[in-house]
Amino acid sequence: MNNLSKEYSASYFLTPGECDSQQRMPITVLVDRIIEVATLHANTWNVGFSELAKSGQTWVLSRVTFEMHRYPRINEYYTLTTWIESYNKHFSERNFAICDVDGSVIGYARTIWVVIDTITRASVDISRFGYIADNISDRECPIAKQSRLRPLPEYEATHYRFRYTDIDFNRHVNSCRYIDVLLNQWPLDFHDNHRIARFEIAYMKEAYFGDEVEVRSHTDGNETTAEIINGNEALCRARFIFTDEHYQ
Amino acid sequence: MNNLSKEYSASYFLTPGECDSQQRMPITVLVDRIIEVATLHANTWNVGFSELAKSGQTWVLSRVTFEMHRYPRINEYYTLTTWIESYNKHFSERNFAICDVDGSVIGYARTIWVVIDTITRASVDISRFGYIADNISDRECPIAKQSRLRPLPEYEATHYRFRYTDIDFNRHVNSCRYIDVLLNQWPLDFHDNHRIARFEIAYMKEAYFGDEVEVRSHTDGNETTAEIINGNEALCRARFIFTDEHYQ
Repeated sequence: MNNLSKEYSASYFLTPGECDSQQRMPITVLVDRIIEVATLHANTWNVGFSELAKSGQTWVLSRVTFEMHRYPRINEYYTLTTWIESYNKHFSERNFAICDVDGSVIGYARTIWVVIDTITRASVDISRFGYIADNISDRECPIAKQSRLRPLPEYEATHYRFRYTDIDFNRHVNSCRYIDVLLNQWPLDFHDNHRIARFEIAYMKEAYFGDEVEVRSHTDGNETTAEIINGNEALCRARFIFTDEHYQ
Repeated sequence: MNNLSKEYSASYFLTPGECDSQQRMPITVLVDRIIEVATLHANTWNVGFSELAKSGQTWVLSRVTFEMHRYPRINEYYTLTTWIESYNKHFSERNFAICDVDGSVIGYARTIWVVIDTITRASVDISRFGYIADNISDRECPIAKQSRLRPLPEYEATHYRFRYTDIDFNRHVNSCRYIDVLLNQWPLDFHDNHRIARFEIAYMKEAYFGDEVEVRSHTDGNETTAEIINGNEALCRARFIFTDEHYQ
C-alpha cells in the first residue's frame, strides 16, 4: 500500500472574478473546491463519480463544516489537502486542510459523504470500496464535528424562488445556491463587518426549478442558525459563527 | 518583435460544478474565461490590470459578441485563443477563437475594451500602450460585429433586486450576474429546447447592492432583444439568437 495515496492535494489561484465583495474567497468557492478535490482523490482509487455511475450510483455531499482563520484573498494561491478520517457502510468522513502559499494552515474542513442509487435515491452500502478502508489516515482535523442542527423554534423568514441559473447538471438546485440564499439574508454592510469563522451545513432534500422556499433564521450574538424550508420539509440546515472583520 | 506574442491561448477543463442544467458550458463561464484570457494576454505586455492600477486606471469590458456552433460539455477540455484586431485611443477590439480538444473551432467571440480612471470613471486615452499597437494580428474573426442595440419600443418586463452574492470585488454587480438575470427570463423547459447560437451584450452602467431593476425583453421568432433598466437608465442591452437543440 502506497502511503502517499492516503492524502491528495491540489493548488488553485483565486481569480478576481471568483472573489466576493470583500475581495476574499466566498464560502461557495471553498465548497466547490472541496467537492473537486474529494472527487480527484476518489478518482485515484477508482471510486469516483464516473466509476460509480457505471452501477447507477453517485456520491452525495451530506454535511460540510469548516473553520477558517482567514480566507484566501484576491490573486492568492492556496492548496487543499484531503484525507479520510473514517468510513463505514453508511458514510465516509473526509477532512481537508486549507493552506496558503507558504504552507501555513488557514483553515480546516470536515465533510460527510454518502452514496445513493441514482434511480431509487436510496443510500447504498459503501463497505465494498476496499480502497477507502485501506486508506484511512490518522492525520488530525482539529475542529469540532458538526453540531446537531435542529428545526428552529423561533425565526425570521424571507422567501426565494429558484430560477434557471440555480439548477445544475444534476437537474436540481446546486448545493452552493443554497449557501447563496443563506448569505443573501444579510446586506452588504453586514458582510463588510463580519467574517464567517465557522460554518456548518447539513443537506437534507433536493430542490427543483421553480420551487419557492422560505429561508428561516435566528441570530443569538455572533451565531446564526438557519433553515431553508420547502412546504413542510427542510431542504438544509446551517449554522454560522461570525467574527468581526472590517473591510477597508 | 516576437510574432508569437500576438496570440495568447489558455486551456481549461469544464467541471461538473460549472455546467448548466443541460450539462453545457453556461455563457457566463464563457464570459469569465474571455475576461481571464484577455487579462493574461495583457499581462504579457505589461498592460494588465495590476499595471494600470498603479496609475489609478482599469480595463472595462464594454461589449461582448459571440457565436457558438456548440458549447463545451461536462468534463470536456477546451481552449481560448485571443488576439487584437484593432486599437485606437478610445478602445481595443479583442477577438477569441474557442476550440475543442481536437483543435476544431467551436465558436468565435468579439469584445470591446476601454480603459477608465477608477476615480473619475472617465475614459482614458490608450494610444500610449505601444505594445498593443505593435501586436495587431491579421487573423480573421468570421462573425459579424455587434449590432446596434437600441432601446426597446415594446417589451414584456420582470423585476429583480441585486443581492449580496451578485456584488463582486469591484463593489458593483458582476457583469455575469447581468447575464444570469437575462437568462432567468426563461424557464428551464425553454433552455432544454434551445441553444444560444449568437449572443451580444453592451455594458452601459454599473449597478449596486440593493438596486431594483426592470428586465425588459421582446421576442421575434428565434431572436430576443433585452435591456436591464435601473430607474430611467439602461444598465445593459443584449440580443440572443436561439437555435433548436433538445436536451436528452
